This record gives sequence, C-alpha cells and structure tokens, in this order.
Amino acid sequence: MNTDIQTFASYLQQIRERKPLVHHITNMVVMNDTANITLGIGALPVMAHAIEEVEEMVSIAGALVLNIGTLTPEQIQAMLKAGKRANERNIPIVLDPVGAGATRLRTTSALQLLEELHIAVLRGNASEVGALVGVASETRGVESISVAAEPEVVARKAAREFGCSVAITGARDVITDGEHVAYVDNGHPLLAAITGSGCMSTSLVGAFLAVAPDSFTAATAALMAMGIAGEIAAPKSGGPGTFRSHLLDAVAALNSATLLERQKVSFA
Amino acid sequence: MNTDIQTFASYLQQIRERKPLVHHITNMVVMNDTANITLGIGALPVMAHAIEEVEEMVSIAGALVLNIGTLTPEQIQAMLKAGKRANERNIPIVLDPVGAGATRLRTTSALQLLEELHIAVLRGNASEVGALVGVASETRGVESISVAAEPEVVARKAAREFGCSVAITGARDVITDGEHVAYVDNGHPLLAAITGSGCMSTSLVGAFLAVAPDSFTAATAALMAMGIAGEIAAPKSGGPGTFRSHLLDAVAALNSATLLERQKVSFA
Amino acid sequence: MNTDIQTFASYLQQIRERKPLVHHITNMVVMNDTANITLGIGALPVMAHAIEEVEEMVSIAGALVLNIGTLTPEQIQAMLKAGKRANERNIPIVLDPVGAGATRLRTTSALQLLEELHIAVLRGNASEVGALVGVASETRGVESISVAAEPEVVARKAAREFGCSVAITGARDVITDGEHVAYVDNGHPLLAAITGSGCMSTSLVGAFLAVAPDSFTAATAALMAMGIAGEIAAPKSGGPGTFRSHLLDAVAALNSATLLERQKVSFA
Repeated sequence: MNTDIQTFASYLQQIRERKPLVHHITNMVVMNDTANITLGIGALPVMAHAIEEVEEMVSIAGALVLNIGTLTPEQIQAMLKAGKRANERNIPIVLDPVGAGATRLRTTSALQLLEELHIAVLRGNASEVGALVGVASETRGVESISVAAEPEVVARKAAREFGCSVAITGARDVITDGEHVAYVDNGHPLLAAITGSGCMSTSLVGAFLAVAPDSFTAATAALMAMGIAGEIAAPKSGGPGTFRSHLLDAVAALNSATLLERQKVSFA
Repeated sequence: MNTDIQTFASYLQQIRERKPLVHHITNMVVMNDTANITLGIGALPVMAHAIEEVEEMVSIAGALVLNIGTLTPEQIQAMLKAGKRANERNIPIVLDPVGAGATRLRTTSALQLLEELHIAVLRGNASEVGALVGVASETRGVESISVAAEPEVVARKAAREFGCSVAITGARDVITDGEHVAYVDNGHPLLAAITGSGCMSTSLVGAFLAVAPDSFTAATAALMAMGIAGEIAAPKSGGPGTFRSHLLDAVAALNSATLLERQKVSFA
Repeated sequence: MNTDIQTFASYLQQIRERKPLVHHITNMVVMNDTANITLGIGALPVMAHAIEEVEEMVSIAGALVLNIGTLTPEQIQAMLKAGKRANERNIPIVLDPVGAGATRLRTTSALQLLEELHIAVLRGNASEVGALVGVASETRGVESISVAAEPEVVARKAAREFGCSVAITGARDVITDGEHVAYVDNGHPLLAAITGSGCMSTSLVGAFLAVAPDSFTAATAALMAMGIAGEIAAPKSGGPGTFRSHLLDAVAALNSATLLERQKVSFA
C-alpha cells in the first residue's frame, strides 16, 4: 500500500510539470473557485460552454469536467458534444451530478450523460449517487440529506451499473472501481461549511485524471489532496469565509512530503 | 420592543435547526457570495434557473429569492414560473430589483414580477424602489445615486402600492409593511465597498422568511443580522477584499447573544 | 516623463471623484472579481448582457468592457450592439480577447469585434494578441503558452492593424498606440497564480479610459496601478487564495503618492 501512496504523491509532481488543460463545462456558482483550485494544484483551467467551441476546446485538454450544478438543457447538449469528442480522443471525463435526486431534470440529465458517454469518474455525495442507482435518498437542493444505504454499498452499485469509478465524498470518502475500494479519512468539517467544496474536489479529480494511468487512483489521490488541504487550512481560519482563501493557499502549497506525511488513505 | 428583538434572535436558532432550502434565481455576479452567506446563516442554498426544473425545485424550498441583477427575458419567465408555484404553496418570495430605474428592461421586469406574483418582501436601495413607484430617482447601473424623497416615504409608498413588506437598505435601513416601520442602524461603510452586499442581504431575508411568521419581522431580523456581521467583520479587515471573507466568517459565527447585545433596531 | 507619471496618478483621483459607470459584458468566471476591483479603484461596475438592455445601459456608462472569456454567439451579438452604441456616443471600449487562438470561435469573435467596432484598447496576453495578427502562438485554453515574436513586436503589429492601443501583459507589460511604447515593470508572480488577473487588469483599463483623454495613457496607468497593487498584496499573502483578497484591499488603498513612489514605468 505504501507504494501506492507514493505513486499518488507523484501525480502531483506530474500535474505541475505537465500543466494539463482541464476543460470545465460547469456551474456558475463555484466557477471561480473551481478555476482557482485547478490552477492551485498546478493544472490550467478553462471554462468554455458554447456548443460551437466545446469540441475544439476539449481536443487540446487533458481531462474534461462535467458539473450539472446550474444545468440547462442547452448546457447538457454542449456536455454531450464535448464528451463524445473526449471519448474519441481518450480524454478522461469526470462527472459531478450536482443535485441529482432533487429534480427530474438533474436526475435524468446525469443518467443521460452516464449512458451516452464513457465517464471515468462519477464524483458526488451519497444521496446524489444513490438517486442515480435507485437507492432511496433525499437531496435537498444540492445537499445530501439522507440515503438508505452505506456510501460504500451505493458506490459499488453505481460503479458496476455505470462501469466507471465512483467517488462518494463525506466525512469518510469512499472510492471504488467496482472491485477495489479506497477510503480517505482526511478532511475537515469546514469543507462542508462552504459552497462548492464538492465541485472543487471534482475539479481536482479532473487534474489528476489528466496524469494518472487509471481513474481509481486519480480519484483517490485527488480526494486525499483536497482533504489534506482542508486540514491545513482549517486552523488558520476564523470561519468559512477565511477558510475558502486558506484552502486555496493550502492546495497551492501541497507537496509530496506533506501528502505522504498526512495521508489517511486505506484500502478494503 | 425588547420581546420583538428576542423573537428576531430566535429566528436564527430556527434557521439553524430546520436548515430550510432557499431557492435562488439570481444574478451571476454574486452567486457565490449569496450561496455562501445562505449557508453561513444556517440555511441551504440552491441556485437553479432552468425553466424545466424551477417549479419542482421551489416546491421543496422554504423560500424563494428572485434577484434581477443579470436578468434576461428567459430568466424572468423562469422567475414567474417558480414564483407562481411558490405562491400556490405559500412559500414566501423576496424580490431584489437590482438596477431598477437604470434600464427599461429592469424596471418593467421588476414591476411584472410584483404584479403577477405575491411578493412577501421587496428589498432594494432607495433609488431602485423609488423607480418602481414613480419617485424621481437616479440608478447608475446598479448603484443608488439619488432619490427625490426620504427612504421611509418611498418604502411606505411601495408597501401600499405592491401590498408587501419593503426593505430599503442604506446607512439606516428602513423596513415597513405599510403600517409598522422598523429602522436598523447596524452596519458599516465597508458593506458599500463590496459588490453584492445588497444581494447578500436579500438572501438573508430569504432565509429568515423561511422560518418567520411574517415578512416584516423576517426582513428586519435579516437586515439586523447583516448589519451586525458587517460591524464585527470590519475591524478585522484591511479593505474590501479581506472584509468579504471576514463578513462570511461573522455571519456564520452569529448567535442570539451577539444579536441581542449589538442590535440597533428601533420602531416608529 | 515625470510629468506623465503624475498625470497617470491624477487619473486615479478623477476616477474616485467622478465614479464613472463601467459597463461590462464579460465572462462568468471572474465576474465577481472584476466587479469588485472596479469598485475598489473607485468606479461603479455594472454587469449587463441582455441584448434588450445593453444599448440603454452603455449610454449611461463612462466606458465599456468586452471580455470573451465565456463567450456565446448570443453574447457576441450583445457586445456588437452595445459597442456600436458606445461608438456613436464616443464611450471608449476595451476588449479582452480571452483565449483567442485556442478555438476558432474565440479568434473569429475577437476579430469581428475589432472589425465592426472602434476599440480603444485591446488588452491580452502575448499569444492571444499574436493569434489575432497571425503571429504563430499557442494559447492553451486561456493561458499564453508560446508566441513566436517579442511581445513588443506583436503589440505594435496589432496596434497598426487594428488602429487601437494594445496592452500585452506579462512579466513586463508593453503598451503601445502604434507610435509610442510604454513598459510597466510593476507586478508580482502571484498575479499569474490566480485566475482572472488579466481580466481584472482589463476592468481597470475600463475605469481609466472613462477619465483619461487618450487610450495609451489610460492603459499604461491602469496596468501600473494593477502591478503596484500586486506588489503590495503579495507580502501579506500565504498563497493565491489570500492574495486575491489582499489584492482587492491594495487596489482600494492606492493613492497618488503610492503610485508615484512605486511606479516602474518607462518609455521607448
């Protein structure tokens, strides 16, 4: 296992050396934070959603982030177009099904993306992923309220059903490719006190996907990095507003030694 | 009066216990801050504007925030659709007529929302509200430049004309339901130095509307909370950039004791 | 030269006294930061993109900022409509061709704006401006990766081709009207560590255009102000997240004495 963690840490170096472009078609609420955290980890973000340019933009990207937080039917069309081109070029895609379960539009749009595209990583909270695999759950707006099964059970079910890696974030993050399971116990309650920390995690998954050989290790490494950054930022913060600034500082200051020292990753 | 202030403070507890969903159809400039301040006060924000989902989303919400800061005609249609559903379900609506008076689109859109929907609270600056009731005023972009009457006169006129509570923010905030009048003298000049402090106040009104029995007390309690948070944040800040972070910290740290101790609310 | 710098500093006073409205049709990623930095320098920002209101809004503005960072064809139509009205009224326009060279939509849209409108200042990075004048360059997403000529050569070529002032930002900023050339050596590497520092510079150019008699001095003064603010903010910051807050504090605290003392402006 130790070797794996070192491999995870080496991805950070690779992101900083290769500076992959991470193309986002994403929500308007957290667009600034997701761009800044992508820059902070060492990749180059671009937010581009016009259907006239998404295929061209994704073609020069190392990964594609699809986030339905402020979706419209037109935006879903742009996601499908970009996603199909990404699949043709073997550019990995991470999908954040924000608010799946809260409205039919969100649930069906997320399912359509999962059906028509090959998604590398599905990153959501337990109730969002639960809603996509028919596990009784309640998503209030974009917040996970309840889910009728353990996150790990939900994640495994989704991984098998959609044939992708699934990362469910929470107090304990669970990542699975349907076979292997990883847990990340890094993190801090302040991450839940700001809007969009899930979306930011998804953007980090995108950055790691651009350099990692497989989606399971990319997602695990990304959530470990996010959790550790949260731990470093929290004691410097007086609340969610200053935490948001310190979180970005902490992401930008991450290095392999810090990751290895602070990691709380385990495998089932 | 003392009893009333204690009631206002108790709303904060209720928001934190019940965590109502506050559905926003709002502007893109301050969307992150309005989401974060809604989380900070203890409610759950969701920003959703697709006409295909707004009725479903508002149905699970405790309040609806309509803010025309970056309006389009399509967005106004989504606001009308969500607003009608909210009215059917007795879910209270707060309207922020950002920039009313600056362009015809803004003035007529705000008036249309006030005519076709039952609005619980209209929250704006003096010139915006003045423009809606025919009081000579100048709105430069989204800033209040001048208005030819006292804010209280404008607020009373609007409350009677639109049959709702009206909250005009400024150095002294004035809130009226057409009969009762409250003044909030809490606040700090730095609130005017950041973009969207008015929009953030409107989001807080939304959160308080979700728990308070009437719109007048909800609006007064919300503006008191915002003003006090501004007072707490200002001395920690080196300017508008750091103030914005400390303001969110301060909102999240508010409690009943602080509200009771610092409140500068009076009634006419 | 000393006289010129004093003139530049006097523009700051004029912005603060006259509080010009700076109408933005701009990208969604950095909209909050560009609004806040416009307020910070002393002007009034308004973000308004609905085609139904852009002509009316720009008519009361002192300058128009066009930024294609998250462009759509509809948004370009709104830019053309607002721009034509601005030209009729002699309201100066600054164009930020974000990502020109990365996709055809971005390159052709920027060229269309330059052809159909009289642009006062074109503000971009070297590869974006290079892409517009046929100098071999690589824009990865919205980042400048490489350009096959010196920034000064690219800037002069663009100034002559488009008949406007051109400001290329980088470690050394170069500003030219095709005849005069200015260099700004103020700045800090952290400016490149946050998303949208280029867009924020463009917004400052808009604010200075609203008070300066010519576009060359407006652009030079704006980039000097931005660079100096970055220098002041950097030592207070622990990374890009806190830098973003301190940068806005520093812009709001700028005064003539600081500008004169810290300026590193030279002329060819």
